[in-house]
Amino acid sequence: MAMDKVNLTNKFAQFDDYWHPRIVGELNGQHVKIVKLKGEFVWHHHDEEDELFLVLRGRLVIQFRERDILLEEGEFLVVPRQVEHRPVAEEECWVMLFEPAGTLNTGNVQDEKTVAAPEAI
Amino acid sequence: MAMDKVNLTNKFAQFDDYWHPRIVGELNGQHVKIVKLKGEFVWHHHDEEDELFLVLRGRLVIQFRERDILLEEGEFLVVPRQVEHRPVAEEECWVMLFEPAGTLNTGNVQDEKTVAAPEAI
Repeated sequence: MAMDKVNLTNKFAQFDDYWHPRIVGELNGQHVKIVKLKGEFVWHHHDEEDELFLVLRGRLVIQFRERDILLEEGEFLVVPRQVEHRPVAEEECWVMLFEPAGTLNTGNVQDEKTVAAPEAI
Repeated sequence: MAMDKVNLTNKFAQFDDYWHPRIVGELNGQHVKIVKLKGEFVWHHHDEEDELFLVLRGRLVIQFRERDILLEEGEFLVVPRQVEHRPVAEEECWVMLFEPAGTLNTGNVQDEKTVAAPEAI
């Protein structure tokens, strides 16, 4: 396994599109991904994957059917498997994700925002 | 599963000791831990666990037998299983770890710095 450090700022500088996660690390069958968000995502859940959202820049609201949770810089949330959720960012927001390799961004939903095979950068 | 966001700054404010990781999140059989480091750790490896080090404050050198890798704020490194390494921090350094639940901080080595059962905060 190659062993190189990852500079998150440099990685985020490599793309500008929203809702398109990139893989920046892999360990123990899990992926570390980064993504830029702006606007509203789709309601979805993941059948078998818990998902961690860590906000590195901006603010992210994760909507649930019963309540919303606002994440600011330096805050993270673990969304358990099977819990329906929708990320919403009023302004551009940079997020780091931890989740099992193979996790589909739109979970149980097939949508124009679905990224079937996110690339590693 | 309870679903509460985690503010990393607030969590780091809850302890002052070095080399004593705390669990701040759990997902997919993995733990998210935070730890303050200063000084030299012990040489060790993990037989079956890859380990991610993300530097949130300060600078961290991870020594390997063949070279050193310097991590600055916003940089992370995945140390693959079975690779001997030693973290060294000249000044206080705040680190987030991502690794399988049950990973022992000193890996194959039993040492005064071993924390057998890190607490969740």
